[in-house]
Amino acid sequence: MIFPDIDTPAVLVDLDIAEANIDRFQGHCAKHGIAVRPHIKTHKLPKLARRQLEAGAIGITCQKVSEAEAMIAEGGIDDVLITFNILGDAKLARLRALSEKVRLSVVADNTETVDGLSKSFADAATPLCVLVECDTGAARCGVTTPEQARDLARYIDSQPGVTFLGLMTYPPVGQEVAVQEWLTRAKREIEEIGLPVHVVSHGGSPGMWQAQDVPVATEYRIGTYIYNDCSLQAQGVCTWEDCALSVLATVISVPADNRAVIDAGSKVLTSDLLGLEGHGYVMGRPDILVQGLSEEHGVLKADKINLKVGEHIRIIPNHACVVTNMVDQIETIRGDHSLGPVPVVARGKVQ
Amino acid sequence: MIFPDIDTPAVLVDLDIAEANIDRFQGHCAKHGIAVRPHIKTHKLPKLARRQLEAGAIGITCQKVSEAEAMIAEGGIDDVLITFNILGDAKLARLRALSEKVRLSVVADNTETVDGLSKSFADAATPLCVLVECDTGAARCGVTTPEQARDLARYIDSQPGVTFLGLMTYPPVGQEVAVQEWLTRAKREIEEIGLPVHVVSHGGSPGMWQAQDVPVATEYRIGTYIYNDCSLQAQGVCTWEDCALSVLATVISVPADNRAVIDAGSKVLTSDLLGLEGHGYVMGRPDILVQGLSEEHGVLKADKINLKVGEHIRIIPNHACVVTNMVDQIETIRGDHSLGPVPVVARGKVQ
Repeated sequence: MIFPDIDTPAVLVDLDIAEANIDRFQGHCAKHGIAVRPHIKTHKLPKLARRQLEAGAIGITCQKVSEAEAMIAEGGIDDVLITFNILGDAKLARLRALSEKVRLSVVADNTETVDGLSKSFADAATPLCVLVECDTGAARCGVTTPEQARDLARYIDSQPGVTFLGLMTYPPVGQEVAVQEWLTRAKREIEEIGLPVHVVSHGGSPGMWQAQDVPVATEYRIGTYIYNDCSLQAQGVCTWEDCALSVLATVISVPADNRAVIDAGSKVLTSDLLGLEGHGYVMGRPDILVQGLSEEHGVLKADKINLKVGEHIRIIPNHACVVTNMVDQIETIRGDHSLGPVPVVARGKVQ
Repeated sequence: MIFPDIDTPAVLVDLDIAEANIDRFQGHCAKHGIAVRPHIKTHKLPKLARRQLEAGAIGITCQKVSEAEAMIAEGGIDDVLITFNILGDAKLARLRALSEKVRLSVVADNTETVDGLSKSFADAATPLCVLVECDTGAARCGVTTPEQARDLARYIDSQPGVTFLGLMTYPPVGQEVAVQEWLTRAKREIEEIGLPVHVVSHGGSPGMWQAQDVPVATEYRIGTYIYNDCSLQAQGVCTWEDCALSVLATVISVPADNRAVIDAGSKVLTSDLLGLEGHGYVMGRPDILVQGLSEEHGVLKADKINLKVGEHIRIIPNHACVVTNMVDQIETIRGDHSLGPVPVVARGKVQ
């Protein structure tokens, strides 16, 4: 029986593996002179954020104001980039309060967002640092041409309460050459109007080992790398042995020789497929397909399922970042040794 | 601006619509002499469970022990069926404690589960009621033949601490004739060995208006019907006007004439597709496709997107039951009137 004392379903995080993942990528970036700014969306744990900073990260990335608030509450984190257009009086007031506690920067890809930030920080002692978000091919947020990046940088520079800091992109995977060209052109355009570009921020776990292939960039944002998952394993970015997060589940039914059912469904593993077949990898059982998930059931198929009712199994999920967000606490382990639960402090912080 | 005072993303629940949904299905079942036992997995709110009981429901259904614990803590709920094989000393001890607070029944589809229940309840004042879970075609849990159902009923009857109550199935959609045949045969087999079958429980929102087409059944379990969603609308079970749950989101970027980005991603809307195209229905804008979700971003596409940065929109999700589980609180509304937040008491209760 694996971890007989942990009730299921539970999200296990092996701290030995997580720490090795942190250190390996930090070492890679140190070698190439790239600053690392981990995205805490994956773990949502102040303790692991502090471990990332101790390893050499320059600060953290958050996606939402509430994530940042939760992450800094315990102390030990003093530099936060929020990579999101922040809009609305309620969030802007909270952002202003945050700026009094940590070194804070945000992004914008439109003038409406800049106007809100400017109004909120107009009477601040120091202006808020703003990066222009650039769409270098991922077709999510971001200005869509280097000229638009220049114009928005100029607009930020012209407004009270805010100061232009640089460029940020959530890049398309495997397009390092195009991303480098885009950002280089934008940087040149902006420098030609007399504005320095202090920071050029890109990132993403799928492209982590190619971080140095965008040399115009100064920092790399990265989230999933701390835990890894089936998606990154399938892309060759990590091995199964590098996967720090798994879901511990109990076999609750073996209705047929080729089918078993576990007590983990989409309310733990989530429905994220990320292009994969099945809903995770059963550790040590590559012959099993996690075929389907109901909310609280997972259906496993194999030619010979060979599992017993009551047995524990571990599943590496397709996408670690969304799994950690499903539970109020994770169970920390080191190898076979259980260290106990840790609350997922920033879970559900979507505002 | 829709609900300008509610920060986004937020999960809105229109209580007028939810109450009408409760009453409409209760009326349908009353007409056909079917007992209703709502599944609280959809709302996870004691307040709405009590409203379902006031309308005439005979008790509630939970999937997990922790859900049941959370639901009964406030009082007013005294009859709970947990439709899950409960295994392991920790959960069995909690189940025993629960049984001292409410009228409790559970299911089993294997002897290992019955043995655990029997051992835990061997010295209880009254035996625990157990239904045999039957696989009538959905290929999840359940004994796979009526003869197995009979044998397991006999086994339950032979063990201390437990008593056989009846049959339960999570039926395949649209197979009422086959389900009726399966359950009728199982009931006859069991009655032939001298055991009464007091309860035959089936259910599911997709087949709700055909509940009476399985006349051997005594009760109907139903969850999603209280809120409804895109999946049920697509199956013709409800109209858009019957959808009580929506996600309020802010447009944070309009990078192109045909694209906008909102502040709700898979950490609110979830990745559940349920066979649909896109990730939800933008209320009043059938021309918009919710094309893709990142964790905190949703990308909307339309020939002319015609949305403004800062604007609020409402999205009916593909699957309401998983959305309510993503947030610590929902925002209750009646029409255009906001009534304030309500904590999702049983959110994340997966054990």
